[in-house]
Amino acid sequence: MTWVQRTIELSPQPRGFQLVTRDILAALPELGKIRAGLLHLFLQHTSAALSINENADPDVPLDLETAFSAIAPETSDYRHTCEGPDDMPAHVKASLLGCSLTIPIRDGGLCLGVWQGIYLCEHRNRGGRRHVVATIWGESS
Amino acid sequence: MTWVQRTIELSPQPRGFQLVTRDILAALPELGKIRAGLLHLFLQHTSAALSINENADPDVPLDLETAFSAIAPETSDYRHTCEGPDDMPAHVKASLLGCSLTIPIRDGGLCLGVWQGIYLCEHRNRGGRRHVVATIWGESS
Amino acid sequence: MTWVQRTIELSPQPRGFQLVTRDILAALPELGKIRAGLLHLFLQHTSAALSINENADPDVPLDLETAFSAIAPETSDYRHTCEGPDDMPAHVKASLLGCSLTIPIRDGGLCLGVWQGIYLCEHRNRGGRRHVVATIWGESS
Repeated sequence: MTWVQRTIELSPQPRGFQLVTRDILAALPELGKIRAGLLHLFLQHTSAALSINENADPDVPLDLETAFSAIAPETSDYRHTCEGPDDMPAHVKASLLGCSLTIPIRDGGLCLGVWQGIYLCEHRNRGGRRHVVATIWGESS
Repeated sequence: MTWVQRTIELSPQPRGFQLVTRDILAALPELGKIRAGLLHLFLQHTSAALSINENADPDVPLDLETAFSAIAPETSDYRHTCEGPDDMPAHVKASLLGCSLTIPIRDGGLCLGVWQGIYLCEHRNRGGRRHVVATIWGESS
Repeated sequence: MTWVQRTIELSPQPRGFQLVTRDILAALPELGKIRAGLLHLFLQHTSAALSINENADPDVPLDLETAFSAIAPETSDYRHTCEGPDDMPAHVKASLLGCSLTIPIRDGGLCLGVWQGIYLCEHRNRGGRRHVVATIWGESS
């Protein structure tokens, strides 16, 4: 039984859905030694999110940003406005999308489908660095 | 400590919320030997999802389909339209609902509430077979 | 390797987003002994949800309740109406938000970000007691 737990710092991203699969994998070389296990990613923020979606067509993340900004619009009549008009919609999107992912590991790699990638969903206009606690547990090969 | 990891193939389903609790359980006989543990289900697709919801009234999945198609409508002005008008809304719903579930196991069975069932949420008009990576880990009885 | 699995009963809450971080922690004293591990929380209901969001400004949960009730409005033309107008929107919100959370544990405490708290999202006007199956697994210190 192997346990790895590490905080990964993601560099500031522009608002929108940003593919970070490579950044996550690069920070977790121990993945290669797991025969069967799981990776848990936990974003320690409430105005951004993690999500898995289509990793190929660059139009998809643009459409996702448009769609989620339509579902949680800045024009709503919010009470919590002290941090700007993009803040409360960011909290709504954080709960819609969730702050964590759990992904199976098999034979040293993530069991993502061919079209699946890991997105950091940055909901703030200026989000800054984001921290992800990564936990790996499983059987070593 | 027991580890089981297996890919389950779900047969093609019509668009909508489809109860698959029995299919999942039938594919995982090892569940019966776990005293305390967890089941993780991971759908390897980006135009379908997994969700837990009410398992009794057949009107509930029909209403869920209607509700999610209203939240992510086909009438939106998407860029990613090459795979048809149901494709980009399917990606939005995939992120809204998520592609994985984690369910506790106790004394050889899933700790689902009385009214909880596992749904495959098929967002495409013709979705085809769907693959779920199931991982069980826990203490054997 | 330590395993703890316990059902936590949350007292009836008014409709809305209710912070329960303290209730959860108080019910899980074994957390303090885990060096590296995970906590999984599983709500055994389909008309409420669990979510992580901003824990400081009391306006945020009020805005979240307003926002989610706008995304899944009671005015929609649902088939499943036998339990009242708040019931089917509650099921929609349950799938939007999800019934479980997985949170990393490090050095005896949850790795929540500074602004993150655990919310019980009560979607029914009169929801009653809610049951959460908590599972802890990890390496003891």
